[in-house]
Amino acid sequence: MSATGTLGEFGLIERYFTRRGRPAASARPEGSSRVALGVGDDCALLAPAPGMQLAISTDMLVEGRHFLSTVDPARLGHKALAVNLSDLAACGARPVAFTLALALPSVEEGWLAGFSRGLFALADAHSCELVGGDTTRGPLNISITVFGELPAGSALLRSGARAGDDLWASGTLGDARLALEAFRGTLVLPSALFEMARARMEQPTPRVALGQALRGIASAAVDVSDGLLGDLRHILEASRVGARVDADAAIELIAANAHPAGGEARLDMETLRRCALSGGDDYELLFTAPPDLRQAVEQAGRASATPVARIGRIEAEPGVRVVDRAGAPVAQRFTSFDHFG
Amino acid sequence: MSATGTLGEFGLIERYFTRRGRPAASARPEGSSRVALGVGDDCALLAPAPGMQLAISTDMLVEGRHFLSTVDPARLGHKALAVNLSDLAACGARPVAFTLALALPSVEEGWLAGFSRGLFALADAHSCELVGGDTTRGPLNISITVFGELPAGSALLRSGARAGDDLWASGTLGDARLALEAFRGTLVLPSALFEMARARMEQPTPRVALGQALRGIASAAVDVSDGLLGDLRHILEASRVGARVDADAAIELIAANAHPAGGEARLDMETLRRCALSGGDDYELLFTAPPDLRQAVEQAGRASATPVARIGRIEAEPGVRVVDRAGAPVAQRFTSFDHFG
Repeated sequence: MSATGTLGEFGLIERYFTRRGRPAASARPEGSSRVALGVGDDCALLAPAPGMQLAISTDMLVEGRHFLSTVDPARLGHKALAVNLSDLAACGARPVAFTLALALPSVEEGWLAGFSRGLFALADAHSCELVGGDTTRGPLNISITVFGELPAGSALLRSGARAGDDLWASGTLGDARLALEAFRGTLVLPSALFEMARARMEQPTPRVALGQALRGIASAAVDVSDGLLGDLRHILEASRVGARVDADAAIELIAANAHPAGGEARLDMETLRRCALSGGDDYELLFTAPPDLRQAVEQAGRASATPVARIGRIEAEPGVRVVDRAGAPVAQRFTSFDHFG
Repeated sequence: MSATGTLGEFGLIERYFTRRGRPAASARPEGSSRVALGVGDDCALLAPAPGMQLAISTDMLVEGRHFLSTVDPARLGHKALAVNLSDLAACGARPVAFTLALALPSVEEGWLAGFSRGLFALADAHSCELVGGDTTRGPLNISITVFGELPAGSALLRSGARAGDDLWASGTLGDARLALEAFRGTLVLPSALFEMARARMEQPTPRVALGQALRGIASAAVDVSDGLLGDLRHILEASRVGARVDADAAIELIAANAHPAGGEARLDMETLRRCALSGGDDYELLFTAPPDLRQAVEQAGRASATPVARIGRIEAEPGVRVVDRAGAPVAQRFTSFDHFG
């Protein structure tokens, strides 16, 4: 972070990412922060509480690939952190801190004000502190590394799914893909639907509380960033199992479909399946749990105010079988989401 | 890191950054690794030993700004990690792990092979493990976050310098800037000198062992990435002091100047001062220590096989006074290094 604020007009950036007037970590009540030293030295210092592990994840967002140039900067600030918090959620960690590396083609105050506002609103909602970073001139690139805390040995991994487990998804699926298709012009959405779907794409909700509530309950978990079937494969490979996925149950999780204006959109079954099963950019949790823990899963959902739905089950036979509600195979090819590539 | 390896041909990248055949962290002797879970899940898990803090730093490298497009990819892999390790060195931390976020315009195997070779050679030399990352298509951008460990409360900070302290620099200064000027065509270097200076620019040596040896000895430290005077200012501002810098002592630290071919280059005094005092890209340590610890500093230098030299002293009066060996003010304006901007 040594370059921050030394690049002439880039000193301006520092203003938007240095938050004066907040109590220093050392001035806060004992235990309220793991951050011993934040922005402004060569390194940040972080000390997890005794018996706790740090969970770490990194995501890089590039214009044209992970977001459109037209995106509202406040939504982009939100999304840049949200996709990282989503990784913490998938392993059940409580957010603690993050670093931000930012390349900007030019310094635009309006953009910086919006971006930092969206970023810090989400950070504050999760008590996740900016502890360091780097800014430089270059093609727009946002790289965040996030740190969470969880009791040693309690992380939700991809490798714990067992044949017979239920397959669950949180929240809503496929709406971000619907918005993307509308942007691409491959389908038309009524404006109320489009705005809702667009907000899902541009401002996803990381399932941080649910992830923590699922510790000790879920046998495996992953966050859905590249599409449900694509990310499911990560669990199946790590756990050496297969899965049966109920396409009809997944389609029911498309919020646009349940919307009063949903009928107007006249979305065909193939589109709905594609959006729900290989939509991408959902940032929901996909997780497995033994059937005898169904009530515990539902309780975790209620406790975290996050809808959860069973959408399939884990099987010993490798591979994925997509079926309809009656159990008949669905003849449709699903490819992994490739963002805007 | 959820997107790693899911982007079609970008799966190729994974091969270069997934190191099979190495023992898993869990299979290593107790205490030999703080990494409980590395690449391949939503998060990496890291647990500092009891009583230890984690030091964290992030640096983003952009083509044309931090490196030239002509750089050898192995040297670039080295440099991308070196600039981060240099931040750990500046706070006295022992490297533990790092994450890598990488945007690439296209997948070129030769480039990936070279980059990962240079990166891992330096990582292995410091037992610093790649624990996670993200790869995406986009303008070339390398963003690394590095994690080090040190006893709680022992970090070298920028804020501890006191009037009367000596000002020290490690290693050599200014050679990277000489190489840059040669690339820019503003000066001509004999080829032996150019190659030496170029290696300093492209393959800096992070002073990791010295940083750790200076814990409990140095009162303040920073790494020199933007030029000695620019980075000195970070110490002075954080410590609310001023400094007197001996330009002649700093010039003696230019390796090219001491080189047998140095005379041929006929570098004028103004150029030498600019390179030594506002050169940039040195990745040396600039630190302060009380005069009664001079022997301890020299012993730390010997123990870490790193030259250290006194180049000035801290004074109560704010601001920086650049003087010659006789103590007379040097009338030359120094501006902060701006990389290739």
